[in-house]
Amino acid sequence: MTTLISSSSGDKIAGNVKSTPVDFTSVKINDNFWQPRIDTARQKTLPEMYTQMEKAGYFNPAQRNWEKGADPVPYVFWESDISKWLEAASYSLATQPDPALEALVDRAIAFMVSLQQPDGYLNLYFTEVEPDKRWANLLEWHELYCAGHLIEAAVAHFNATGKRHLLDPVCRYADYIGTVFGREPGQMRGYCGHEEIELALVKLYRVTAEKRYLRLAEYFIEERGQTPHYFDIETIARGADPAKFKHETYEYNQSHLPVREQTEVLGHAVRQMYLVCAMVDLAKELQDDSLLRACENLWKHLTSKRMYVTGGIGPSADNEGFTSDYDLPNLTAYAETCAAIGLVFWNHRLLQLDADSRYADLMELALFNGVLSGTSLDGLSFFYVNPLASQGNHHRQPWFNCACCPPNLARLFMSLGQYIYGLTETGDILVHLYIQGSAEIQAGNRPVTIRQQANYPWDGQIELEVAVEEPAEFGLRLRIPGWSKNATLAVNGQEISPVVEKGYAVINRRWENGDKVTLSLEITAHLVYAHPAVTENTGRAALQRGPVVYCLEAADNKLPLDQLVIPSNPGLQSEFDSDLLGGVVVLKGTAATPDSAGWSDDLYRVTPASRKPQPFTAIPYYAWDQREPGEMRVWVRTQD
Amino acid sequence: MTTLISSSSGDKIAGNVKSTPVDFTSVKINDNFWQPRIDTARQKTLPEMYTQMEKAGYFNPAQRNWEKGADPVPYVFWESDISKWLEAASYSLATQPDPALEALVDRAIAFMVSLQQPDGYLNLYFTEVEPDKRWANLLEWHELYCAGHLIEAAVAHFNATGKRHLLDPVCRYADYIGTVFGREPGQMRGYCGHEEIELALVKLYRVTAEKRYLRLAEYFIEERGQTPHYFDIETIARGADPAKFKHETYEYNQSHLPVREQTEVLGHAVRQMYLVCAMVDLAKELQDDSLLRACENLWKHLTSKRMYVTGGIGPSADNEGFTSDYDLPNLTAYAETCAAIGLVFWNHRLLQLDADSRYADLMELALFNGVLSGTSLDGLSFFYVNPLASQGNHHRQPWFNCACCPPNLARLFMSLGQYIYGLTETGDILVHLYIQGSAEIQAGNRPVTIRQQANYPWDGQIELEVAVEEPAEFGLRLRIPGWSKNATLAVNGQEISPVVEKGYAVINRRWENGDKVTLSLEITAHLVYAHPAVTENTGRAALQRGPVVYCLEAADNKLPLDQLVIPSNPGLQSEFDSDLLGGVVVLKGTAATPDSAGWSDDLYRVTPASRKPQPFTAIPYYAWDQREPGEMRVWVRTQD
Repeated sequence: MTTLISSSSGDKIAGNVKSTPVDFTSVKINDNFWQPRIDTARQKTLPEMYTQMEKAGYFNPAQRNWEKGADPVPYVFWESDISKWLEAASYSLATQPDPALEALVDRAIAFMVSLQQPDGYLNLYFTEVEPDKRWANLLEWHELYCAGHLIEAAVAHFNATGKRHLLDPVCRYADYIGTVFGREPGQMRGYCGHEEIELALVKLYRVTAEKRYLRLAEYFIEERGQTPHYFDIETIARGADPAKFKHETYEYNQSHLPVREQTEVLGHAVRQMYLVCAMVDLAKELQDDSLLRACENLWKHLTSKRMYVTGGIGPSADNEGFTSDYDLPNLTAYAETCAAIGLVFWNHRLLQLDADSRYADLMELALFNGVLSGTSLDGLSFFYVNPLASQGNHHRQPWFNCACCPPNLARLFMSLGQYIYGLTETGDILVHLYIQGSAEIQAGNRPVTIRQQANYPWDGQIELEVAVEEPAEFGLRLRIPGWSKNATLAVNGQEISPVVEKGYAVINRRWENGDKVTLSLEITAHLVYAHPAVTENTGRAALQRGPVVYCLEAADNKLPLDQLVIPSNPGLQSEFDSDLLGGVVVLKGTAATPDSAGWSDDLYRVTPASRKPQPFTAIPYYAWDQREPGEMRVWVRTQD
Repeated sequence: MTTLISSSSGDKIAGNVKSTPVDFTSVKINDNFWQPRIDTARQKTLPEMYTQMEKAGYFNPAQRNWEKGADPVPYVFWESDISKWLEAASYSLATQPDPALEALVDRAIAFMVSLQQPDGYLNLYFTEVEPDKRWANLLEWHELYCAGHLIEAAVAHFNATGKRHLLDPVCRYADYIGTVFGREPGQMRGYCGHEEIELALVKLYRVTAEKRYLRLAEYFIEERGQTPHYFDIETIARGADPAKFKHETYEYNQSHLPVREQTEVLGHAVRQMYLVCAMVDLAKELQDDSLLRACENLWKHLTSKRMYVTGGIGPSADNEGFTSDYDLPNLTAYAETCAAIGLVFWNHRLLQLDADSRYADLMELALFNGVLSGTSLDGLSFFYVNPLASQGNHHRQPWFNCACCPPNLARLFMSLGQYIYGLTETGDILVHLYIQGSAEIQAGNRPVTIRQQANYPWDGQIELEVAVEEPAEFGLRLRIPGWSKNATLAVNGQEISPVVEKGYAVINRRWENGDKVTLSLEITAHLVYAHPAVTENTGRAALQRGPVVYCLEAADNKLPLDQLVIPSNPGLQSEFDSDLLGGVVVLKGTAATPDSAGWSDDLYRVTPASRKPQPFTAIPYYAWDQREPGEMRVWVRTQD
């Protein structure tokens, strides 16, 4: 067996393998893992979310019973839930017609469009509740953030249906925003306290080809953190004291410095992610390597010092975000679902500018862990906060006052297909994720179909069949996950040892119709240790198998979980249980636990308890909190 | 060297060695440990507390700016601070005349007495703020609790000064209370939601010899927890729902069952302690073994399942009290200073009915740790809450809105002398605590002086000199602390091996004037482990030396404290540092810590970090938080 060894990551952007994603409308997913979740999101989550929004009075001002100035309820950002729902529903319609869903979509669009003002302004809160406060508090009031999500919804809706009845009003709104903000005399030199509109404007540019939207995105990114600081000016203008900003520093919204000078992930984690997404988008559209470099530095900082083993990010509830290096508490981990989703968005974008498996590894890690934990198997309850330990009192909820995470999950699941394949500038096909299904790809004007068979993430055996109308020469670039210690490749049963570039095995050949590629990844369960500076995890290890991080739950382990001590070789066995939690591989092993048999009534004594063997069972972290409530631990005590 | 071995604890109350404490007015303390603290309490704490009470408007209704019904500010129990201060100040006056202090005492007494109503009622809050609410809410409003503290103050003041100007009004009040509460027709069958008056009434009986006060105490104790439940009746009477009691169950105030049926320490910890104090007092006065038996069961439950290694009790802030067996969280430990003081009161009472060193051991443990941590060295700031771990954000404060702990500490320190010696029914002298000084004891009409020389708790060498006017035969019973693995005794340099009864070495002899007893206790620093069921402490150990529990503080150990792993034999060295924290023995040893030298930029990897040796320093727990703020841990990680 030959092990595929990755070459070291290159350092020249010019030499990067660049790609565009294969759109989810060209990708079918039919595996046992994701397809049921996508179906659930479509059939359960989307209608339920609409109901929740109706119940909360999103579409009915009278029912909302809003009091003027009664901030933060209703929240200024409520309309972004409608927009993200519209985006998710549009993705669903793009691959599966559904007249009932489309009717809801049209109702929601009609409601939103009805809010548009003669000058093009289009916002729910600042039209209905506080019309005199338009643009008065970009720092805190999410006005441009809401515009961003509406733009994303409009782009998705247009792509899905070809209809312009949301896109056109949104373009008018974006045009109006373009007159308000900028560096010309009479314009406001502002930008949003919550990044989002920047990446949305790039999407709008891509669908309309109108450069002014790209330029507006560029303006927002470039203006961020310049001095004199806009948020200071704005705060003083409304008679307040910038020194009293409740988050103390503009690091909270990443406007403490111009974006290229930022070297640490800081502040609100979702804000940070949406910012770096836009930076990569602009780097791509403007061929601006300096923006990509800044993102690479931030990526390195995040992944080497500030990320949970689940791909969760942002440990603190105080700022919903980052704190200090190596500060990764488990019980109080915030690790907002939306932040992990943002991490997927960002790494997917980085991957397009640099086909480096590190980005795909991280995208996959977040997907299978920090993102997926955000939803229950039935798609009807959600975690906003994803701790890595629980005393049994943290549970998924059907809805939130700030309900950003459920629709964010929905839009990700409904467009999951786009994360699987990429097409390079030279017509090679990249396979980032192993998810059974198929893709129709126009690889250099040749229609190519890739059929993928896999029982991933439980099994490392992946079969790819290439279907071409006539033999064609192109490269097939398969990601070799970083967690796999051994991987072998065969074409039509013949083992091959292709070059591995930045973690992608490159198979260049003249493909015949029906050629079969077999990728065998070694998936073993093993312990993972954290850097010693992560004090929270000293003397502890996590369990991982393939991309899936595991946890121990009280439902399987009938003793206080911190009484389990796992040896460095706990003899881990992987067992697939089709009846458990939608079908999961559980890990079983033997730990030690203190033996209280030898203790008298003494509460304290001068000799420690002896230990006895204790079998344990671990389940995938994403599946926790779906049985009887109880303790949960990702990081388990070890002897090391 | 002969080791003194204790006989097993007897099981017959009739055979118990019973004693009365030697009053603190007959005991002089002149050691290096307690005397400075007592002087500080006298010179700093007492005047400062009076100032704090004045500042808070305790003595000045106008300044208080009370709004009718503005519960809980001012608190219904504020007057108990005045009473405890009066008690402490009276103890001070009893041993050291101080006209300035006496003037303050007289002012405070005049203020309190001025509140007395024609019928004898005497309460601050329900006279000044809500006079129409007298006796309306015994469950929550501390009215009889306040009466109890006022009675204790009056007894102390009378004993100290011989003056009756507080005692007489208080007797009138107690008499009035006796008319209100009881089982006669027209009387209320109530008792207080916060025990205290019961033990106070026993004190009042002891000083006045009026049996009616003892009977009233007995009534309150016997009525507690009877059905129909008074607190139900009372709650319904004021139109409320007993099911909505905020603490859910009457376990909170130990009225869930009649007192003899209670087998677990439960609810509010201070309430629990004051209850069991009164139960022992009544057991003694009424020769009621059943009350003592109940207390013994509660003692066993507390010490085997619900007590911190520091003698702190009551882990939860929610009920300021007990939770469940083995639930002893460190960081969030409540362990109220007053509860540890209550533990001292209780064990001192138990000791009087049963000279068993277990009670003295516990009294000493609480004194040196959970109690003493409650005050700073300068006597001007206090812990209400005594956690066993800190992230550096828990600090002593000069005063509290609910300021029960500072005056409770003061009254304990000012009367500390009474905890050292006891006189048995047969004229033997018990030595419970080793504190340098002297005691004048009337042992069977013979005046005996005991002069104690010791550098305790730092050194285990204790010299006792017996001074008698003429040779006298009696037993000297010296406590052999449970923590001492080896103890030897000599009289006039001659080693002896006396019988040890329940942890007390009994030296029966005809004492000549000037006889010298030398007790040598082995004091070694060692690790202490908690019962395996204390999940919080699995994989951890505490450090103890003699009666002193140690902790690690960031000020001495420049790394995250949870990164230290102490081996089972850490080579502990004891070093006295006279300049540190008033003079303490510090412990030094070598632990291991993860070595990050070998780590790359990876945040996670599949092999654990190697370890390197790391010296550490521990200081007495009671002295923590008096240098730069930082982490603190009592329970340190171990390899076991």
